[in-house]
Amino acid sequence: MICRVLGWIFLIYAALMILPLLTGLIYHESILNFLLSIVITGVLGALLLIPKPKDKTLVARDGFVIVGLAWIGISMLGAVPFTVSRSIPNYIDALFETASGLSTTGASILQDFDSMPRSDMFWRLFTHWIGGMGVLVFLMAVMPMSGEHSMHMMRAEVPGPTVGKLVPRVRHTAQILYLIYVGMTFLEMICLLLAGMSFYDAILHAFATAGTGGFSTNAGSIAGFQNSAVETILTVFMLAFAVNFNLYYLLLIGSWKKALSNQELHRYVTIVIGSVVLISLGICSKENYSVRSGVHTAFFNVASILSTTGFGTADFTEWPEYCKWILILLMFCGGCAGGTGGGIKLSRIMILLRSLRAELQKMVRPRTVVRVEMDGQRVESQTVRAASTFVALYMILLLFFAALVSLDGYDVATCFTASLSCLSNIGPGITKAIGPAGSFAIFSGRSKLLLTLAMLIGRLEIYPILVLFSPNTWRK
Amino acid sequence: MICRVLGWIFLIYAALMILPLLTGLIYHESILNFLLSIVITGVLGALLLIPKPKDKTLVARDGFVIVGLAWIGISMLGAVPFTVSRSIPNYIDALFETASGLSTTGASILQDFDSMPRSDMFWRLFTHWIGGMGVLVFLMAVMPMSGEHSMHMMRAEVPGPTVGKLVPRVRHTAQILYLIYVGMTFLEMICLLLAGMSFYDAILHAFATAGTGGFSTNAGSIAGFQNSAVETILTVFMLAFAVNFNLYYLLLIGSWKKALSNQELHRYVTIVIGSVVLISLGICSKENYSVRSGVHTAFFNVASILSTTGFGTADFTEWPEYCKWILILLMFCGGCAGGTGGGIKLSRIMILLRSLRAELQKMVRPRTVVRVEMDGQRVESQTVRAASTFVALYMILLLFFAALVSLDGYDVATCFTASLSCLSNIGPGITKAIGPAGSFAIFSGRSKLLLTLAMLIGRLEIYPILVLFSPNTWRK
Repeated sequence: MICRVLGWIFLIYAALMILPLLTGLIYHESILNFLLSIVITGVLGALLLIPKPKDKTLVARDGFVIVGLAWIGISMLGAVPFTVSRSIPNYIDALFETASGLSTTGASILQDFDSMPRSDMFWRLFTHWIGGMGVLVFLMAVMPMSGEHSMHMMRAEVPGPTVGKLVPRVRHTAQILYLIYVGMTFLEMICLLLAGMSFYDAILHAFATAGTGGFSTNAGSIAGFQNSAVETILTVFMLAFAVNFNLYYLLLIGSWKKALSNQELHRYVTIVIGSVVLISLGICSKENYSVRSGVHTAFFNVASILSTTGFGTADFTEWPEYCKWILILLMFCGGCAGGTGGGIKLSRIMILLRSLRAELQKMVRPRTVVRVEMDGQRVESQTVRAASTFVALYMILLLFFAALVSLDGYDVATCFTASLSCLSNIGPGITKAIGPAGSFAIFSGRSKLLLTLAMLIGRLEIYPILVLFSPNTWRK
Repeated sequence: MICRVLGWIFLIYAALMILPLLTGLIYHESILNFLLSIVITGVLGALLLIPKPKDKTLVARDGFVIVGLAWIGISMLGAVPFTVSRSIPNYIDALFETASGLSTTGASILQDFDSMPRSDMFWRLFTHWIGGMGVLVFLMAVMPMSGEHSMHMMRAEVPGPTVGKLVPRVRHTAQILYLIYVGMTFLEMICLLLAGMSFYDAILHAFATAGTGGFSTNAGSIAGFQNSAVETILTVFMLAFAVNFNLYYLLLIGSWKKALSNQELHRYVTIVIGSVVLISLGICSKENYSVRSGVHTAFFNVASILSTTGFGTADFTEWPEYCKWILILLMFCGGCAGGTGGGIKLSRIMILLRSLRAELQKMVRPRTVVRVEMDGQRVESQTVRAASTFVALYMILLLFFAALVSLDGYDVATCFTASLSCLSNIGPGITKAIGPAGSFAIFSGRSKLLLTLAMLIGRLEIYPILVLFSPNTWRK
């Protein structure tokens, strides 16, 4: 049954590759690389469908295994077109770039964009859109599957401490999520077109924003367009895509009050405003920005980092030190649960801090009963425990990856923020070499593979990848 | 009752100040500063004893409040002699230095040691010894108090995820701990004398090692003595003092087998050996050490950092990057529970990793019952939860302090490792400015106060200080 689901995923993935192939046809480019990849991916998918499943049930473990294997698989298969077309000749580099796209990180090893065919560029930014909402959620939206089993997979792929069904049927939930996703992407594209972007740039940047990815068609990222309206539109949409999609559903069905009283949303807005104010103060006084452009720049970059997109309009590695630290804190935080953003997720941090407050109250008065609440509802102790385990584990993995990457000989801050940036699916780091003006090309092949792993671990919220590496999973 | 206990603590503290006063008399120095401090501390202690307690019971909250207030109090009072004698004219600097001493951090703002009177220097290193085992444990050892109440205080002051009574009576437990502490300090002093140190240096370095502090009488730290035997002795004792003292008690009563089968000890030894091997490889190949001196240096510095002492024999900020990261990881880890070392504590990390393994097993097979075990005994779920909350909270505080300290304008790595070093009670950071050859004098007064707070939070394992700042504590 695991093979069967993986087979369908690869077939869908092969179908998605038709889009860059069409792009290649439109722009009269060589499309051999996509033809080849479609054949490989399609044949692999078909082969996986051959064995008849003896047992149609999927247990919890299978959900994690499928998600883990599927993401490693699509990263490896998605890298093929880049290597075949020689736009990224080294396969490890191509794998890094594809995993960076699919995990919506947006960290790039590319330094020269001009030689890349438009079809490859389309694929590069389209991976953000595929990875943003997830391939399994897509599969669930189009395939009839029994509810209980698909819920296991949904839990493993959708970010956040808890996953709620919007409607009783999982399939409909997945469809609603994708409809909102497509609708918002389309809306953003229209806005970008109105702001003066070309159709090609508008659709690709809408993809990259929707997944909170961060790749751009321009080597100078968003700064290269020198279009203030585009920056404002992107700011709004970056923030919007990192909000819990359940809230948009609530808005659509008319539950305005419930959607707007969401506590995670309130905290999200507070954090954005607070960070923009603090950073504006720093860059206006030290970096000679005018107040207007300072606030504009701060707003864009806060939205870019908090939503874990990673688009750039300024080299924040030159900002005052405390501004960098605000960005580092935002990198840890990430977006809301149930959005396309990465990081630890705001709601997990809120649960953790609330459980801490409860813990302190219990220490002071051991006999009082203290409940951890979110949005007026009790948070189960299981969820509370999972949130603090997640944060602790996140930190351990972060330090572990940073230490391994340091074998390349780069300084503490570079290794630390490279690891953080990949694990939180941001894109740029906080030092010059890997900042908005830098590139991950500086790292060795070994480090690129490690960071690829970190990106996937971050996107899937640790467990699916860890389950794959746990010997217990493969024991009978 | 809180006042009463605080009163006794201050009286004992005043009595302890007689030792540097005697040192001053021996070396014919001005002792006015200590006379004044003894009078202030003594009078304050006596005043606190005046109000008759209405209620003799101490609840859990009182334990935390007493420990928190006592440590802030002794830090502030202990700084007075330095300011009065003008060896550290600025009171904030003196407070930083005293808190650094008492919390056994060993981070120093001093750059010129020659002008400091010997009595002040004695007091500076003696604070390590006082803080290592703790003033409340001392109070419990000498004062008859009812068991239940003193256990609350012991829990708040002794490091580690759980605190065990060695013997049924808390007072006897405290006495045994102090006897072992005094015995080992004495043994180390004898060894250092035999290795050729002067009596004055030997006793002070024994104090500094016992508390895993890290101050030295020499501006060049241990490197200044250029005595290889001294380095070896210190290496052994630094590691020994960061081991759980319960194990020494087990050895004393003849339970060799039980002591040597302790899992935390095994992991501790493994970590030391592993780190020494990896660092030796790095510094022998890149830093032109001979194999013998490379291993010697690696061993000393691994012991110094893992035990959270912070003595220096080499400037590890010049080592290969991955060696620095090994030291950073050791800084997080810290010593064993129940020793005088700081950091997160090895047993907490072990509990966390084991609970993670259990969590993974549960994900894969939801119906299996998985227990988290240490030394063959089940770890209570309460302890497991506390360990992961502690690690998550530790990381949040670390980033928070680093971000605030960054207002001084130092780079990311300096702020990060300064905050880590203070929170884990190590001493030096990993960058040039605050490394073994640097000094914390570079920071502003505001940052010094913040780092002082971080040191106390680290020494008391977060909660006693947080409880003091929680409004709920002071509500009726």
